[in-house]
Amino acid sequence: MGLFDRFERGPLRLNRIEAFSDGVFAIIVTLLVLELKVPSIPDHHGVSELGRQLVELLPKFLSWLISFVIVCKFWLNHHPILGLARHANYALVWLNSLFLMGQSFIPFPTALMGEYAGNPLAVSAFGVVMAVNTVLFIVLHAYILRHLIKPALADAQDPDIIRKSFIGVRSYLVGAAAAWTSVHAAFVVYLLTPLFFIVPVTRRDVAESGLA
Amino acid sequence: MGLFDRFERGPLRLNRIEAFSDGVFAIIVTLLVLELKVPSIPDHHGVSELGRQLVELLPKFLSWLISFVIVCKFWLNHHPILGLARHANYALVWLNSLFLMGQSFIPFPTALMGEYAGNPLAVSAFGVVMAVNTVLFIVLHAYILRHLIKPALADAQDPDIIRKSFIGVRSYLVGAAAAWTSVHAAFVVYLLTPLFFIVPVTRRDVAESGLA
Amino acid sequence: MGLFDRFERGPLRLNRIEAFSDGVFAIIVTLLVLELKVPSIPDHHGVSELGRQLVELLPKFLSWLISFVIVCKFWLNHHPILGLARHANYALVWLNSLFLMGQSFIPFPTALMGEYAGNPLAVSAFGVVMAVNTVLFIVLHAYILRHLIKPALADAQDPDIIRKSFIGVRSYLVGAAAAWTSVHAAFVVYLLTPLFFIVPVTRRDVAESGLA
Amino acid sequence: MGLFDRFERGPLRLNRIEAFSDGVFAIIVTLLVLELKVPSIPDHHGVSELGRQLVELLPKFLSWLISFVIVCKFWLNHHPILGLARHANYALVWLNSLFLMGQSFIPFPTALMGEYAGNPLAVSAFGVVMAVNTVLFIVLHAYILRHLIKPALADAQDPDIIRKSFIGVRSYLVGAAAAWTSVHAAFVVYLLTPLFFIVPVTRRDVAESGLA
Repeated sequence: MGLFDRFERGPLRLNRIEAFSDGVFAIIVTLLVLELKVPSIPDHHGVSELGRQLVELLPKFLSWLISFVIVCKFWLNHHPILGLARHANYALVWLNSLFLMGQSFIPFPTALMGEYAGNPLAVSAFGVVMAVNTVLFIVLHAYILRHLIKPALADAQDPDIIRKSFIGVRSYLVGAAAAWTSVHAAFVVYLLTPLFFIVPVTRRDVAESGLA
Repeated sequence: MGLFDRFERGPLRLNRIEAFSDGVFAIIVTLLVLELKVPSIPDHHGVSELGRQLVELLPKFLSWLISFVIVCKFWLNHHPILGLARHANYALVWLNSLFLMGQSFIPFPTALMGEYAGNPLAVSAFGVVMAVNTVLFIVLHAYILRHLIKPALADAQDPDIIRKSFIGVRSYLVGAAAAWTSVHAAFVVYLLTPLFFIVPVTRRDVAESGLA
Repeated sequence: MGLFDRFERGPLRLNRIEAFSDGVFAIIVTLLVLELKVPSIPDHHGVSELGRQLVELLPKFLSWLISFVIVCKFWLNHHPILGLARHANYALVWLNSLFLMGQSFIPFPTALMGEYAGNPLAVSAFGVVMAVNTVLFIVLHAYILRHLIKPALADAQDPDIIRKSFIGVRSYLVGAAAAWTSVHAAFVVYLLTPLFFIVPVTRRDVAESGLA
Repeated sequence: MGLFDRFERGPLRLNRIEAFSDGVFAIIVTLLVLELKVPSIPDHHGVSELGRQLVELLPKFLSWLISFVIVCKFWLNHHPILGLARHANYALVWLNSLFLMGQSFIPFPTALMGEYAGNPLAVSAFGVVMAVNTVLFIVLHAYILRHLIKPALADAQDPDIIRKSFIGVRSYLVGAAAAWTSVHAAFVVYLLTPLFFIVPVTRRDVAESGLA
């Protein structure tokens, strides 16, 4: 008991956790562009050759764009979640670090899908990683709701919010499965999933989506 | 209506949007240097050979310098724009994220122009990307002016500011077109454009520039 | 004396030291993923070939994961340590910078161990670097306790905390030594060490661990 | 006049300039490690071969260490300088951006010196870049002293501080010149120069150094 009491007080401040998280998010979205390598062509002045090479980079541009939107969406939803907590404890910090670990991994599957856009394994792996990231986010959210929610906000929470959040998990897994039939379908699912969550889910959205 | 009300209140705070944006800006300007690769020469002690290789990097140094100035200019103009908003909503966040996506893309055309400084396509692409970035900035600016402006600041705004901001777009496109005739002319235009916007545009500047 | 007085007052503010440190921590954990290079296979559509290559990356994934947890742990423990100081002086800033230098070096031994997971020298070097990092952290901690502790917090400090912190140093060195017999044993020790410190050490933990 | 009045008021806030600068500093010191590439050896289990390759990296480790200390020193001295200003204006922002541009360039000469540690041109270039960076810092400092100093702090300033700051410039240039005779001497000068400035210069230090 004394140990847990210590967790709930002490020098942990929510604002440094936010600063650390914002830093990690900002670096991830900016690092993604490093995977867009300038093509190498022998004739430096060849316009049509360079144009052809740039067109071949299209899957990489698309992977970059999808991951950028997804990470921005996670960043955006991370705000109100942390805002629900009345203070930070060690459990929160580690669940948040685990979530950020998942986020910071995203450049790898992004590069993999960009490089092997026609390979079902690469495209499917992207969806699985995003599903895992969504689960890590849900775990963080659920922990705060159960243990750290500000009393004043407790009643305003949608009691089904956690169950609804699994729509994202299922959607990414649908994309991951679709990749084995059509990589194009998977790309479409990956792009649409974060767009669906661009604003916080309301009951009506979920009802209309037919996914719940 | 209830949905939009929710957008305009809630846990979104302007200071975390600023922190995220500042982080992205800081990372972009610092990552640009990673494109300056140390040249590879067989004789490690050859002074004249190393000197020759460094001189050949000049277009890359110049691309780096131009992009550094441009991103700093965007960062600087981003301050007062966000300062106009009385609060943040989801539309603001996503327009801002879209703008940051454009910014974070800048290392790619910078590297492309540095590597293929004599190739009109590469030099032209740089100008087009910068024009698109300026448009994304203008959209963000216009949205705040129309929907989120602080009442106390509304009267002090220049009613023609959005129209004037398109000078930058046109200027980058002029550079992009010039690249097909002379890449040197394009470099000059790209370097001069942000310098013109180093301080906020006043009516006199625009009148004197002859671009409006 | 006049020189030291100047160190203890003046314009140094603890919050910019925290901001700088948080920035460095955030960048380190995010840069670690850059060592996970997408494998290169000739047949872009070969699922089994890509799968085999990804499995061979396992040691790199594991190195990445261990370093991520270790740096997060350092970041987390860095909070309360700086919180003990009543203000910053130049000695604190430089001890902190030295500590951050050690932290920012971590991507190198991580990449080394990931690339040469079966090489005792590479695996051992990882443990030595982590031991040195822990020593740098202890030096910072001890300096604050001796010279800058807030009077109100002085009595609440565990008088044996510095001695106890050396458990981490010894643990990493045990791993570094174990690497020469079994690299697998070293990996296990490296992974367990930060987990032991996930929450601040209490007397009971140390007594139960049998390491003190 | 109206234009300059506008420069001195308005929405420019010193704290976002600090945040941006801290971000750039944090990223630079952390990026430096990316130049430490893991050596490539054919026999992955060869301990002595890996050890030999790591020893050959010593000049790169040393370049990394020197640059880390130098950038930390600039970051540290940047604090009190900005703290002297009563507010920010566009001139301050651009002088600061120019200074940060110089800082963000540092990874390049660091990598160059690390790769070509025996080449006088590479070692000399490092010193010249550091001298230019020190000049950019002095310009920023001098501008604040002349135009933006807080009235309450004006009298406490050392009237010779700018002249004294040129000791650093001269010292780096001495190192750059020494490189053409002995690269080892240059390394020593580069390492000692920031150490001399680890704490703010006092009159006695300068008198004792014999450099003024």
